[in-house]
Amino acid sequence: MKTLYFITSNKGKVREAADKLRPFDITVVQKDLGYAEVQADSLREVAAQGVKEVQKRFDQPFMLEDSGIFIMGLKGFPGVYSKYVFFTIGLPGILRLLEREKNRSAVFQSVYAYCEPKRKPIIVSGECPGVITFDQRGKNGFGFDPIFIPIGAKKTFGEMTTKEKNQFSHRSKALENLISKLKKF
Amino acid sequence: MKTLYFITSNKGKVREAADKLRPFDITVVQKDLGYAEVQADSLREVAAQGVKEVQKRFDQPFMLEDSGIFIMGLKGFPGVYSKYVFFTIGLPGILRLLEREKNRSAVFQSVYAYCEPKRKPIIVSGECPGVITFDQRGKNGFGFDPIFIPIGAKKTFGEMTTKEKNQFSHRSKALENLISKLKKF
Repeated sequence: MKTLYFITSNKGKVREAADKLRPFDITVVQKDLGYAEVQADSLREVAAQGVKEVQKRFDQPFMLEDSGIFIMGLKGFPGVYSKYVFFTIGLPGILRLLEREKNRSAVFQSVYAYCEPKRKPIIVSGECPGVITFDQRGKNGFGFDPIFIPIGAKKTFGEMTTKEKNQFSHRSKALENLISKLKKF
Repeated sequence: MKTLYFITSNKGKVREAADKLRPFDITVVQKDLGYAEVQADSLREVAAQGVKEVQKRFDQPFMLEDSGIFIMGLKGFPGVYSKYVFFTIGLPGILRLLEREKNRSAVFQSVYAYCEPKRKPIIVSGECPGVITFDQRGKNGFGFDPIFIPIGAKKTFGEMTTKEKNQFSHRSKALENLISKLKKF
């Protein structure tokens, strides 16, 4: 049984990752160290900078994750700043912005960065395309989950169990990419 | 005549600062070096980190500025991320978010950081309270200027000349604070 530290303050992310990595005999342990997130055009850049910072003060294998939702009709907003937007204008704000917008397509993106002491990080991403609903549905998950239906599903992420969500989710795909890379590591 | 480098890509900011500092015999020279902006709760933090980064690779006295508009009815949104929001949902997005909002109060904030080689930076701020209009007015200024009327004025920043705007503006007040600190430096 291998232990992998997950640098995050978000229990929901830990739950998702633990579910996903259990079959690989990996125990995920939350470590809420905190790190600076840069204002960048891409999640990959945010994660890459974060990993550099954490590596300086943590000497165990760890991973961190950054994710966001990119809404096509809003030029990619809220993207890299999804968390901030969630805590300010929130889901009602997003729905209001889209009221007269025909294009409700959106992509959830997740970037995982994995790092061992004194080694270069592995950075992977996963995407989940879908649409923004007209109202909030479901209370599971977190963040933008209640207004996002992935392509191929009829429920929002907010209406799905963790197991159902993991069949579609960006974070789940990113973790799969990470697992396949770790096997070759 | 003293030369002061202004680390910015924004010509409008340079114009405003040059106007303001000319009577003090200071020539403002734009230097578009670029620097990382962190995701932070306050502009002060963004500026403080920026100055640290620039100081490592620039050996002349310089200043940099970060500003944002904090809208009360939107829990301070777009705040620290004003620039990103301007280039995505833009002014129409802000007006849409406020359509059913009674509280249209907002505060423009500007933070200037000034630094000489190998010395601690001076960080000052300036605020300009006002309200968000119901539509865009005027083509002067930049950013959120066409939808912001400062308290005590009848025109938006977008309808004012640089000289008029400097009587009210957050950036102008921050510069005044900087000037008074520099005199004691």
